[in-house]
Amino acid sequence: MSLQVGIIMGSKSDLEIMQAAADVLTEFGIENEVRIVSAHRTPDEMHDYAKSAKERGLKVIIAGAGGSAHLPGMTASHTNLPVLAVPIKKNPHDHEALWSNVKMPPGVPLATMPENGAKNAALMAVEILALSDPELDQKYTDFKKKQHDQVLQDDESIQ
Amino acid sequence: MSLQVGIIMGSKSDLEIMQAAADVLTEFGIENEVRIVSAHRTPDEMHDYAKSAKERGLKVIIAGAGGSAHLPGMTASHTNLPVLAVPIKKNPHDHEALWSNVKMPPGVPLATMPENGAKNAALMAVEILALSDPELDQKYTDFKKKQHDQVLQDDESIQ
Amino acid sequence: MSLQVGIIMGSKSDLEIMQAAADVLTEFGIENEVRIVSAHRTPDEMHDYAKSAKERGLKVIIAGAGGSAHLPGMTASHTNLPVLAVPIKKNPHDHEALWSNVKMPPGVPLATMPENGAKNAALMAVEILALSDPELDQKYTDFKKKQHDQVLQDDESIQ
Amino acid sequence: MSLQVGIIMGSKSDLEIMQAAADVLTEFGIENEVRIVSAHRTPDEMHDYAKSAKERGLKVIIAGAGGSAHLPGMTASHTNLPVLAVPIKKNPHDHEALWSNVKMPPGVPLATMPENGAKNAALMAVEILALSDPELDQKYTDFKKKQHDQVLQDDESIQ
Amino acid sequence: MSLQVGIIMGSKSDLEIMQAAADVLTEFGIENEVRIVSAHRTPDEMHDYAKSAKERGLKVIIAGAGGSAHLPGMTASHTNLPVLAVPIKKNPHDHEALWSNVKMPPGVPLATMPENGAKNAALMAVEILALSDPELDQKYTDFKKKQHDQVLQDDESIQ
Amino acid sequence: MSLQVGIIMGSKSDLEIMQAAADVLTEFGIENEVRIVSAHRTPDEMHDYAKSAKERGLKVIIAGAGGSAHLPGMTASHTNLPVLAVPIKKNPHDHEALWSNVKMPPGVPLATMPENGAKNAALMAVEILALSDPELDQKYTDFKKKQHDQVLQDDESIQ
Amino acid sequence: MSLQVGIIMGSKSDLEIMQAAADVLTEFGIENEVRIVSAHRTPDEMHDYAKSAKERGLKVIIAGAGGSAHLPGMTASHTNLPVLAVPIKKNPHDHEALWSNVKMPPGVPLATMPENGAKNAALMAVEILALSDPELDQKYTDFKKKQHDQVLQDDESIQ
Amino acid sequence: MSLQVGIIMGSKSDLEIMQAAADVLTEFGIENEVRIVSAHRTPDEMHDYAKSAKERGLKVIIAGAGGSAHLPGMTASHTNLPVLAVPIKKNPHDHEALWSNVKMPPGVPLATMPENGAKNAALMAVEILALSDPELDQKYTDFKKKQHDQVLQDDESIQ
Repeated sequence: MSLQVGIIMGSKSDLEIMQAAADVLTEFGIENEVRIVSAHRTPDEMHDYAKSAKERGLKVIIAGAGGSAHLPGMTASHTNLPVLAVPIKKNPHDHEALWSNVKMPPGVPLATMPENGAKNAALMAVEILALSDPELDQKYTDFKKKQHDQVLQDDESIQ
Repeated sequence: MSLQVGIIMGSKSDLEIMQAAADVLTEFGIENEVRIVSAHRTPDEMHDYAKSAKERGLKVIIAGAGGSAHLPGMTASHTNLPVLAVPIKKNPHDHEALWSNVKMPPGVPLATMPENGAKNAALMAVEILALSDPELDQKYTDFKKKQHDQVLQDDESIQ
Repeated sequence: MSLQVGIIMGSKSDLEIMQAAADVLTEFGIENEVRIVSAHRTPDEMHDYAKSAKERGLKVIIAGAGGSAHLPGMTASHTNLPVLAVPIKKNPHDHEALWSNVKMPPGVPLATMPENGAKNAALMAVEILALSDPELDQKYTDFKKKQHDQVLQDDESIQ
Repeated sequence: MSLQVGIIMGSKSDLEIMQAAADVLTEFGIENEVRIVSAHRTPDEMHDYAKSAKERGLKVIIAGAGGSAHLPGMTASHTNLPVLAVPIKKNPHDHEALWSNVKMPPGVPLATMPENGAKNAALMAVEILALSDPELDQKYTDFKKKQHDQVLQDDESIQ
Repeated sequence: MSLQVGIIMGSKSDLEIMQAAADVLTEFGIENEVRIVSAHRTPDEMHDYAKSAKERGLKVIIAGAGGSAHLPGMTASHTNLPVLAVPIKKNPHDHEALWSNVKMPPGVPLATMPENGAKNAALMAVEILALSDPELDQKYTDFKKKQHDQVLQDDESIQ
Repeated sequence: MSLQVGIIMGSKSDLEIMQAAADVLTEFGIENEVRIVSAHRTPDEMHDYAKSAKERGLKVIIAGAGGSAHLPGMTASHTNLPVLAVPIKKNPHDHEALWSNVKMPPGVPLATMPENGAKNAALMAVEILALSDPELDQKYTDFKKKQHDQVLQDDESIQ
Repeated sequence: MSLQVGIIMGSKSDLEIMQAAADVLTEFGIENEVRIVSAHRTPDEMHDYAKSAKERGLKVIIAGAGGSAHLPGMTASHTNLPVLAVPIKKNPHDHEALWSNVKMPPGVPLATMPENGAKNAALMAVEILALSDPELDQKYTDFKKKQHDQVLQDDESIQ
Repeated sequence: MSLQVGIIMGSKSDLEIMQAAADVLTEFGIENEVRIVSAHRTPDEMHDYAKSAKERGLKVIIAGAGGSAHLPGMTASHTNLPVLAVPIKKNPHDHEALWSNVKMPPGVPLATMPENGAKNAALMAVEILALSDPELDQKYTDFKKKQHDQVLQDDESIQ
């Protein structure tokens, strides 16, 4: 299978959050790449990454960034691919990355996932890819069933 | 062409915001339906809508709601389809719907669009559908080009 | 005596907060049950729990949840019983669960208790049940008297 | 039928919000009284009102206040009856009354309803009173059915 | 010299913050008393304390409370004495006590000091008492001089 | 009688808020002066005003300012007199002036009154001056009685 | 004299705020240009503008943007010139642009001016340019003197 | 080379944050001084420092302060030099210093750097000084190149 999802982030320290996205995708058998691309320190490389993503075969980009968090929005401005933003925060109350992602102007779509929500970003990528991949859709159904059963089991365990 | 996007909202008063999603989709030639489905007042109908969406041929659901805004998240819990949440606010500072959408727990993906961002939700749906529709992808490229040229024109107009 | 109060929560990790509700109720001699029911991962079980609560003899439901916290509001939409929401937060500043609970739309009542306020939720249940149970009302008066005397004692202890 | 619900508020200007509670209760056939009682300007009268409420036959107190909003909490400290707080705000972003109501200390229960949510406070009173009044319970079921049907009708109206 | 300042607080756990007020006052030779008085758990004792404060010779009341923090405002409603509120917070972001103190309605003055600002509350009491006590005024001038010199010394120490 | 209270503010546009302080003081027969003194545009004049206030016979300074609101705190740093800050806001959610006033460092007391709370600042000045003026104390008792009776009258008017 | 300051903004609607910067600069005799450059809709033009600014003789760039407000930070990433950000907001409580500007990561300096503070951005540019232009420095001293005298005049006018 | 940048702060405890500014400037070969100057405890010394800064040869002042943070704004009111404010916070959510810095009134420019952003303040000073110092400009270009290359290296390191 070919590369389908690009996972990018603004700095190496973001990897502790973003690794979860790669793990989930790999678990679902989706080929992905993990890259560090800084909107402010390597703007030209960011530009090139976003511009070439579609022709390189990518279908979804997951972009994580903290603070001013310009990476997801700038990436979205350079590509037709759906970009899923993961606002990264090191302190529980740092909502700036969220605001920077979720206030994009009309005409430049960016989908914001939960803060530090790399896992859900990967699952959203799964949902998008499953639209044209029935086998993946079935795997996802199984995943949700397992998750459902875990709750029932937790419920029993406390009785 | 068949129905591809479902646009749902919690109450009739949300239509003034959500109509923009339908307008954009129609402009791109994407068949869509607009429905009022209340998480709190018609929970069973919401359940049925979400459960049957995929088999009815829908590919993306755009769900708008204000206040506690449980509609998008509950819809996401019932379907494998990507759900795009539009947090609706009537007063500029009412961020509760945004928080309700963007704090979904790990395992239940929901993509949050800008507050009142029905237009961007539709464009995100376009990006997702364009992954398997080259003609739509070209239309979207044209749309972005036009948008780009408008800025250049605005720039000229103020000189 | 029969089962009177249902205590539900969205995940097993919420038990450390919600256990206090069960403890207080038991202290007042009120029969209660503790259940894990997830709005997003077991929506159908949640539906069934809420729908059958009244006929099962329950009089009050205490529902605790964190993050998007859809459990209390969705439960309220399925039952005529008073539902007391306990917004759960792990970090001191996570007010999203509170907002999700306290912004319910007109027509769907939900009573919000303090964040992590399982004890006060139980006491509110006591006040409701005491309306038709003079013995319980007396126990509650005694409880408040003891609480009052503790303050006087604390005051003395620091002189 | 005898007086069952007391609706109190901190100043005459709160009446425009709180009248809705009286209207809903009257619609359900529940006898109620509307009173102005100020925690800060008539503290002794507030004390007397709360202290005598139970023996006067009241079953629920709905207390609305804005700003520092001490009325609901102080009332709760003087009575065994369930007190439902309605945080009143004149400007959309004035959440102080909400915070004052929802941060009551452990041991002194107060149920917070939505900001300006006089209607939902009345419905919560209905739910409490319906626990021992099957006829009222049926009226409430009918109310919810009507509300449900209105959504279906709204949905149809926009097709 | 006679008793001049009353320091009250809502619970024994507030003493770790409020002790600083007593320490500063004692350092300035101002007689003071420290009392635990709960607005919610001992409302009648609070009423009596506030009502009798002036005739007992007190000139200023410093009132510290956290959470809903009704103690300072309710005390102010029962006395002609200046009441200085100290909003107490255990977590850095808990501003509810501050809001509860600083949103008192027109007609009921309450002076809010910094959060956990027991020291400044005591110094404000010093300023008020110094208006009619030249010796105390001189002590306060000396205090400020010492504080000023400490900064110069700190500045030198880092060169 | 001599000048007792100085009312200062950062700009002429603040007068619409601060005039209420002068009006209340005059109503209580307290001589006061109203001055415009800008911390940022006339810092030297502010310095001189604060430095000379005590020797000019002032007993209390009421200082109103909006935005960065440095006037009250800087005034407090130059005088032994109690300074009462009135945070001024033109838009309901502009809390910056409040924060600037209420976060003064330990050692430099400043009493914060409600936002736009010029009336309560004047009443706090009344309370301070009444400590050594029994006649003023009586006037203040009468004022509170009238305020109390107004509530009773409002209560009657809505029956 | 040659072009010294570039004033850029994300959309034509920002001109009503940003025009003030041009007006102030012109009043001080500083040549400036006003341009519309969108980070999201014309990213390549933004790149070129920032990259060529220094060689075109510019000394300071003033960049205004609202919402996600990526323009100032992205511009800063492409140039050695000091960039002054003006966070633009249409509703009083929209602080997202401010956060986006003021949370830039270490290593990429951006100076944030007040929200909608185009005038102060221009004055900051004056201060920077005056470092090597004594005549401009004198003009600025005169400006501050006039501003100072206006306060004295306002003070007199209300006596 | 002569002294070019003054780094001032409100208290000795701020040095742990502000030292970074001195370190960066020294690294770039820019002579600087570090001083403790308190707006509230040594207001006259602050006045003298700001008033004499320009004639002492300083070109930029970096001012760090926490809490009410009046130091940067008051310094700006006394000098024609560009003043760069560093809002200092000890707890992640303490944004008061930021607000105090960024809400300066029209006519008194102050450039706000990131919270605790001493490094970026120094780099902004570098950008300003480099306008008339080509050698410094080249050093800064080298610095940015190194920073850029570090990202590429980080990117490689995780492959």
